[in-house]
Amino acid sequence: MQYRKARIEALQQRMRERRLDVAFVSPSADMEYLIGGRLPLTERLNQLVIPAEGDCSLVVPKLQLPLVAELRGDIDIQIWDEDISPLDLVARLAPKGAQRAAVDGHMWATFVLGLQERLPGASFTDVSPLLSAARICKEDGEIDILQEAAQRFDAIWTTFFERGRLLGRSEYQIANDIRDLILEHGFDSVLWCDVGGGPNGASPLHHGSQRVVEPGDPVVIDFAASYKGYVMDTCRTPVAGEAAPEFVAIYDIVNKAYEAGLEAVQPGSKAESVDHAARKIIEDAGFGVNFLHRLGHGLGLDAHEEPYIVKGNEQLLRPGMVFSNEPGIYVPGKWGVRIENIVVVTEDGSRSLSQLTRELVSMH
Amino acid sequence: MQYRKARIEALQQRMRERRLDVAFVSPSADMEYLIGGRLPLTERLNQLVIPAEGDCSLVVPKLQLPLVAELRGDIDIQIWDEDISPLDLVARLAPKGAQRAAVDGHMWATFVLGLQERLPGASFTDVSPLLSAARICKEDGEIDILQEAAQRFDAIWTTFFERGRLLGRSEYQIANDIRDLILEHGFDSVLWCDVGGGPNGASPLHHGSQRVVEPGDPVVIDFAASYKGYVMDTCRTPVAGEAAPEFVAIYDIVNKAYEAGLEAVQPGSKAESVDHAARKIIEDAGFGVNFLHRLGHGLGLDAHEEPYIVKGNEQLLRPGMVFSNEPGIYVPGKWGVRIENIVVVTEDGSRSLSQLTRELVSMH
Repeated sequence: MQYRKARIEALQQRMRERRLDVAFVSPSADMEYLIGGRLPLTERLNQLVIPAEGDCSLVVPKLQLPLVAELRGDIDIQIWDEDISPLDLVARLAPKGAQRAAVDGHMWATFVLGLQERLPGASFTDVSPLLSAARICKEDGEIDILQEAAQRFDAIWTTFFERGRLLGRSEYQIANDIRDLILEHGFDSVLWCDVGGGPNGASPLHHGSQRVVEPGDPVVIDFAASYKGYVMDTCRTPVAGEAAPEFVAIYDIVNKAYEAGLEAVQPGSKAESVDHAARKIIEDAGFGVNFLHRLGHGLGLDAHEEPYIVKGNEQLLRPGMVFSNEPGIYVPGKWGVRIENIVVVTEDGSRSLSQLTRELVSMH
Repeated sequence: MQYRKARIEALQQRMRERRLDVAFVSPSADMEYLIGGRLPLTERLNQLVIPAEGDCSLVVPKLQLPLVAELRGDIDIQIWDEDISPLDLVARLAPKGAQRAAVDGHMWATFVLGLQERLPGASFTDVSPLLSAARICKEDGEIDILQEAAQRFDAIWTTFFERGRLLGRSEYQIANDIRDLILEHGFDSVLWCDVGGGPNGASPLHHGSQRVVEPGDPVVIDFAASYKGYVMDTCRTPVAGEAAPEFVAIYDIVNKAYEAGLEAVQPGSKAESVDHAARKIIEDAGFGVNFLHRLGHGLGLDAHEEPYIVKGNEQLLRPGMVFSNEPGIYVPGKWGVRIENIVVVTEDGSRSLSQLTRELVSMH
């Protein structure tokens, strides 16, 4: 944990510009951005109370006191015991007569409704866009962490391609093998490790199953993990044994779509233009209806954050923005393919944080 | 996925009794209770729209269509493409002129505020207490699943006690060893696996670290995993090598507190009386200030749900309620101990779902 004074003061400045009196922030990437750590998100209320001016408070249950020890001296820590209503405490900490309140976008409804009940005169809005505006362009130190995480992901893939096995293993077993590699490579935690073999790969969000990989199956493997608080995310689609020519053909289309997406990334371009460039390759090849999702999402303290690379998002790209480039083709009943790298917008274009091959890999 | 018609109709009945016009339910245990599965909780909106009378709708993004295939025919499925506002669609699905709306307690604030904006005439309340009232007493089929999960947890512990290692391994490595065992024993996913050795065990919510276990360290190991959609949860505190007599003394107090808690579980008793019975043992032994948390929490589709076994909760226990009994003593700078089993309220008392030893186990 580390109290981020400058970030909190910048938020308070933006709150004053928007005439917000108080913001309540629950455990989330927003909280992590402000105090350098994320408390548990459960029915036990943890909340940062940020007035538009003056000192903040952090409300935590007693049993979590050890988790916030590093913040003592930097922020007013308010402890609640398990037999009181912590929302009453939070409401008391709000500036008297607050008219315009804000909550972070991921706060649980039960807490939002509880605050609305306790501050009946106040209107409520979402404070996350104000924080997102600050978080969307990464600082150099943040990009360094993401770069290091991407290099470690490359090492994980290289080891897996060389020594891992697909054939005869279930999706859950493969996920567990990769999970072990992720943790051996110094990551704090695994956010997901989704494995979809053969027809299961045709569902973009398939999580895994007991299905055993058969010869010729393409296997969509998508994983994300947290490194020093930041999320790295990747996807490749190796094949067990020999790939069918028909699969090689769609694999190549997805690879070309990835390249077209990467080339379209330029400071000053619209986010949607990157999606359009990649999607056009897939549409022109006749697989438009099989590319079921947006091209990408930003990431950083959150696994999914702005900018979203999707039709309709006219946000202009700026140096320091970091997002995924992950085109895919999904053929129901047969297979799927997705290739994903994380790219960063530079002063004169873009670069991929990963240097891993995007060629089709055949494995045992 | 499985459409739970009777459960939805029972909810609609309770909604009519409370004069609620519509309920919106996002991915959560509440959603799982109603449609037999949980969709991904992300910025991509998934929502169940339940009018007080008539047919429900399920709003999902296009790429998730494969995930809800089993529900086709049972419920109106509304697909949104990634370049439209799904909240507009949800608001249009609400009954015309709805005055009293409800959202599930875990819905993200951004969706709650978006619905409030789109239904400006409606008041909003939390629908989760209505669902909790139904979920709090488990049906026989649910208890069977929890019982099977507990037996598998016992097998995991037995294997770990016999073949696992503490000495010389880091908390993260130990967590990973246990994670492997959990997945080998047929669980769908690991919710957490927290390991706190020596002084790290003194923080009840310590997650893990690179700290290597030293001779004589007690190691608090708490894990939870999902089995057929239901959560099982456990904690034991084995010692690496020989335990200090001072530690054995507090271990025995915690064990006696567990027994007192279990004995206090009776249909008709107040939830808080169980906490009180266990806490009294620890307080009488002079460690009251070192028992930092409530005695337990309900569990089922959620890892933490009603009934909470905590001072101030006057809810009466009824057969079929399932919750944790997990007293602990935490000595800052030294160590911690916690022992946890899941217990079920029976017609004439209670039983633990686990048959695992609660004696102090010494390991290599």
